[in-house]
Amino acid sequence: MTRPAVVLLSGGLDSAVTMALAREEGRSVYALTILYGQRHAWEVEAARKLASRQGAALHRVLPLDISSIAVSALTGHSPVPREASSPAGAERGPAIPSTYVPARNTILLGLALAWTESLGGEEIFIGVNAVDYSGYPDCRPEFLRAFESLANLATKAGVERKSSFRVRAPLIQLSKAQIIREGHRLGVDFSQTHSCYDPPAPAAACGSCDSCRIRRDGFRQAGIPDPTRYVLETN
Amino acid sequence: MTRPAVVLLSGGLDSAVTMALAREEGRSVYALTILYGQRHAWEVEAARKLASRQGAALHRVLPLDISSIAVSALTGHSPVPREASSPAGAERGPAIPSTYVPARNTILLGLALAWTESLGGEEIFIGVNAVDYSGYPDCRPEFLRAFESLANLATKAGVERKSSFRVRAPLIQLSKAQIIREGHRLGVDFSQTHSCYDPPAPAAACGSCDSCRIRRDGFRQAGIPDPTRYVLETN
Repeated sequence: MTRPAVVLLSGGLDSAVTMALAREEGRSVYALTILYGQRHAWEVEAARKLASRQGAALHRVLPLDISSIAVSALTGHSPVPREASSPAGAERGPAIPSTYVPARNTILLGLALAWTESLGGEEIFIGVNAVDYSGYPDCRPEFLRAFESLANLATKAGVERKSSFRVRAPLIQLSKAQIIREGHRLGVDFSQTHSCYDPPAPAAACGSCDSCRIRRDGFRQAGIPDPTRYVLETN
Repeated sequence: MTRPAVVLLSGGLDSAVTMALAREEGRSVYALTILYGQRHAWEVEAARKLASRQGAALHRVLPLDISSIAVSALTGHSPVPREASSPAGAERGPAIPSTYVPARNTILLGLALAWTESLGGEEIFIGVNAVDYSGYPDCRPEFLRAFESLANLATKAGVERKSSFRVRAPLIQLSKAQIIREGHRLGVDFSQTHSCYDPPAPAAACGSCDSCRIRRDGFRQAGIPDPTRYVLETN
């Protein structure tokens, strides 16, 4: 019987290639998309197409708006109260990179763990990368190993030793160009993957944010045509 | 300046007493209620009243419907597909106690961690109890210690050593009667707390589920009147 694995599918290039690698390993893929506050409908539709084309057994989309509790440029404005009772941390904002989302991968892996245990599976695939995103603490191998330990303590299946949970991060040491070559080899439809932090129009990319720049450079270095529609800003 | 602490407030008796203990310790309380699929509006309203009466600085309610990914009597019917592609785990359901929710506290603590870091705080209060809920792996001290280690690896504040996250579980070794006495001492309005797994009517309790039985016995043993409106079933 095919082994089930939950794949965290953001709809970005990395998670799409991660899903393709899980399929290549023969896993029965259960794709999980967590919908942050300001995700667009076309991004969800693209994730659905990726899951369907890559033969996912099931694709779940879970809305979760953490913008009211997590300070980040990716999740909206600061929710920290500005009254007299405001804690010291409210002034610390600038020290945190604007695209870092507090505890993001802890939350994503927690949700993926719930599904993995429910399915009787053991593996969670996540498209984290420690090369381009070296500033993110929750993209490091030591974080992923710590989550595995936690998962085995946290769950019924882990405690009863029915399961030994593993977090698989096949892209963690790859460059963007290497990831793109892997995706190309596996037939990933890059036109359905999005990377832009702040899309200026449906299915388009700004071309100038960090994520867009890393993506464009990656395609250039890989020597593979980039199907992304970039709407380059002039200012 | 008052130290901020995030309190996971389900609206149950235990979390209400936990919030009162955090206030007694002088914390500025940021109460976080995660709304599962079938929570009722009156339960949210009760949580709001508890947070307000106990002087919480802020109360956030976050909808999160995990019923499509987590198999449990508390979150709805099994989401596990029954087709030919269904994994081995689909048949394991009965081995898991029906009220156990896979990875629940991992998810709740992950969300609380996001808010705690955003606030510049270090403490998360959770009303877990290892006495009445000894079967739950994610109510044990070793799970909470593992989460603390994870939190310090997962976050910017932890890695930069600005924060050392702690999970506070002041009720973990108390009996239900002791918890009720603590709540009574601190003026917790028990009429606004609910415990029933399956309320038969708004602001009522079935009186017969495990949670109701533990609650009733607790009030009896504590010698404190139980304001709960039980709708006892005859069958």
